[in-house]
Amino acid sequence: MPLSAAFTQLCLDLLGAANVVTEPERLRVYECDGLAAYRTPPDLVALPETAEQVLGLMRLCREHRVPVVPRGAGTGLAAGAMPVAGGIVVGLSKMSRILALDPLNRTATVQPGVRNLAISEAAKAHGLFYAPDPSSQIACSIGGNIAENAGGVHCLKYGLTVHNVLQVKLATIDGELLTLGGPGLDAPGYDLLALAIGSEGLLGIVVEATVRLLPLPPATRVLLAAFPSVEQAGAAVAAVISSGLLPAGLELMDNPAIRATDAFVHAGYPLDAAALLLCELDGLPEQVAADSERAVAVLAAAGASEIRIADDADQRKRFWAGRKAAFPAVGRIASDYYCMDGTIPRKHLAQVLRRISEMSAEFGLAVVNVFHAGDGNLHPLILYDSGSDGEFAKAEAFGGKILELCVAVGGTITGEHGVGSEKIPYMCVQFGAGELQQFLRLKQAFDPDGLLNPGKAVPTLHRCAELGRMHVHRGELPHPELDRF
Amino acid sequence: MPLSAAFTQLCLDLLGAANVVTEPERLRVYECDGLAAYRTPPDLVALPETAEQVLGLMRLCREHRVPVVPRGAGTGLAAGAMPVAGGIVVGLSKMSRILALDPLNRTATVQPGVRNLAISEAAKAHGLFYAPDPSSQIACSIGGNIAENAGGVHCLKYGLTVHNVLQVKLATIDGELLTLGGPGLDAPGYDLLALAIGSEGLLGIVVEATVRLLPLPPATRVLLAAFPSVEQAGAAVAAVISSGLLPAGLELMDNPAIRATDAFVHAGYPLDAAALLLCELDGLPEQVAADSERAVAVLAAAGASEIRIADDADQRKRFWAGRKAAFPAVGRIASDYYCMDGTIPRKHLAQVLRRISEMSAEFGLAVVNVFHAGDGNLHPLILYDSGSDGEFAKAEAFGGKILELCVAVGGTITGEHGVGSEKIPYMCVQFGAGELQQFLRLKQAFDPDGLLNPGKAVPTLHRCAELGRMHVHRGELPHPELDRF
Repeated sequence: MPLSAAFTQLCLDLLGAANVVTEPERLRVYECDGLAAYRTPPDLVALPETAEQVLGLMRLCREHRVPVVPRGAGTGLAAGAMPVAGGIVVGLSKMSRILALDPLNRTATVQPGVRNLAISEAAKAHGLFYAPDPSSQIACSIGGNIAENAGGVHCLKYGLTVHNVLQVKLATIDGELLTLGGPGLDAPGYDLLALAIGSEGLLGIVVEATVRLLPLPPATRVLLAAFPSVEQAGAAVAAVISSGLLPAGLELMDNPAIRATDAFVHAGYPLDAAALLLCELDGLPEQVAADSERAVAVLAAAGASEIRIADDADQRKRFWAGRKAAFPAVGRIASDYYCMDGTIPRKHLAQVLRRISEMSAEFGLAVVNVFHAGDGNLHPLILYDSGSDGEFAKAEAFGGKILELCVAVGGTITGEHGVGSEKIPYMCVQFGAGELQQFLRLKQAFDPDGLLNPGKAVPTLHRCAELGRMHVHRGELPHPELDRF
Repeated sequence: MPLSAAFTQLCLDLLGAANVVTEPERLRVYECDGLAAYRTPPDLVALPETAEQVLGLMRLCREHRVPVVPRGAGTGLAAGAMPVAGGIVVGLSKMSRILALDPLNRTATVQPGVRNLAISEAAKAHGLFYAPDPSSQIACSIGGNIAENAGGVHCLKYGLTVHNVLQVKLATIDGELLTLGGPGLDAPGYDLLALAIGSEGLLGIVVEATVRLLPLPPATRVLLAAFPSVEQAGAAVAAVISSGLLPAGLELMDNPAIRATDAFVHAGYPLDAAALLLCELDGLPEQVAADSERAVAVLAAAGASEIRIADDADQRKRFWAGRKAAFPAVGRIASDYYCMDGTIPRKHLAQVLRRISEMSAEFGLAVVNVFHAGDGNLHPLILYDSGSDGEFAKAEAFGGKILELCVAVGGTITGEHGVGSEKIPYMCVQFGAGELQQFLRLKQAFDPDGLLNPGKAVPTLHRCAELGRMHVHRGELPHPELDRF
């Protein structure tokens, strides 16, 4: 059902014409996020400038039963910010002020549209930084990071977004402003803060966040280790972690990734290596030196054919250049790529990478692997040509097989990108009816009419049944009253 | 309403007579937990031996609308396991097996009745340990730790229970078994694992947990610093943390605590110090040496009158002996004490300790302070005589004033003990109607009839209104339908 003129007018009254987008050509900007293969044009985009305006919008949408899709910077890779027909998009890009930076307590309080990297830039003067660093950190915003529980290269040591956010102010669909969490180590009551983080905009809209800042490590060293086979590199990852080392980052690139990135940024990587690991160590200089010695020994024992060490900032930058440019570099060698995101227990890395390579041959689609190996978070890039009929569907099917493989070895269907619209079918693989039902009940406790980001993150049990994926439970699909979520 | 004979018989049929307690003299054991001032005799105690039996009990209780109070080792200090009239207690003490210990992945999978310390004892052979270490760790069980999100001396560096549990199997009141979390860094769907941890038995009963194990640090050093005033010791805590050090533990004892414990365990503490700090540093030997040098400089600059260093295991044990024996030591100098638990921002430590000392004079009740200073987690022990009429009520009132003070300076009413029955009134001080209402809705999503541990952790809005503490919201108390939770 299209939006009524009356509703549109109420939005204009609330926000002013400068903050409401209704012209079709301007709406096109918002029809997808970073997963451009999934598109729906929105009817209206609201761009509130204050928390009060967000609360007002929520009350309007609740009253008029209009679905609400929150949107940060639109860099998400799982179509979590894809609009829904008959609904509005609430873009938080105009709420982009750093409200406070407290070096003594090491916190920053920011609006949701503040870019991830802008927090570290502001904190740098105080010798501090904000740890989670997704690849999109130049562009992505903290509200979106919270919605997706974003990770990044350094989450191996410093944790995901959930470990680095102390407090969130959440606008509910009722137009209430809830304060979740707080500055202390623990808060009484249920942990609504952890619940909100990673909830993909289904429980409310973040209008303010207080994040933890960490001291910049006094010393950093990056090791680059080349391996004659991907399996050996995968086994080396497990060996590094088992040795008791906790690198700040531990990344794996396979040969196609090495070649693509080297051709793009000339990082000087060993082009004949089957795989390379980048292992960043940070801390006090004494500790980095000791850790580095151990890491070199472990990597050598695991079969590294070459190990290089970068100590100064320029060298480190060169080592990281290829990794950081990997996605655009792959964009140069293929007309399109589909970036998957799954997590597996580290001990299965070698086995899963081998199986992905076999499936690549079966599907006839090339794969480039470049990912957060230290925490088992895979990012296979499936190369395809969107101009070729049915090729995206083939890429999607291949991606789905990879996710099912992740679940089969005890892993999960997402590491840091979220479920969004993209992975709804695989939620039915990951979870049983009991867990899904509890998710739906919980959603109902926040959003009884199912207006917040409908169709994302959590499938109804009927949707799973339609997909032929439901583990039927005691002979029937329980709880039809939960179907509207 | 007392339990029916039919319901009791169904429990006997399910568990066998050996696992059901109904004799009044045996029921007395369960009438309170570690907060013995709050007592209610239970009608029946069920002691299941398997997860299946827990699920069966839940179904029985749901069907017969019988309230369920889960109980671990009964060491809780906030009356979270106090029985309710007409309900049953489900004691998990017979589910006490370590099911698996995986040194490669560094995890242990245990039943809920496994003692906290038993996990570290089992892991020691592999050079590993389980980090959260509440004072009661010899006796308390992991199920209770999860229910209360337990902390301990080492949570400053290693986090609370929520940071050290990877997966929980939760029995719901419907008799469903939900698997929450998993071995990976992140899981899709809402973060039900974080939600369950610290939920004080109001959302379900933990029947299995997989916890993270950490490598035992290769080196440990403990510093003991004496201060001429409590204020200086409080300021020294803030200075240590601001310097960028992250001690494994940072504890404060005031003079009454020093004297009481030294008289008990002869730890050799400086008896004339107004306060002492115990600062434990761990890690690689090089790092511990460097950290220790910095810590000594910071403590000296903060006004320490004496600093002692313990390197070998015997010395360290002596330094810790007084701290670890503090509670029983205080039990020797007072007929009763009431242990409070609140958290404040570290920068307010000196100010809050001074105000507690003034209130101690106002109430005419002595206070002993011994607590986790590094994370601002206060544990004032209020001394009183339960034989003297009205003195516990006075201690309770004094404790309440301390909690209100914690909230006033931006802290919280509990650090690690939970809310239980004890702190219900102060939840109305800590939270507004919006947050409380969301807690109640969330409870409803797990337990629609309000059968799990009723009366604990989260007050109804009407209860807050009765207590005269509700911030009335838009002129009325909203949502009477939530009153039964």
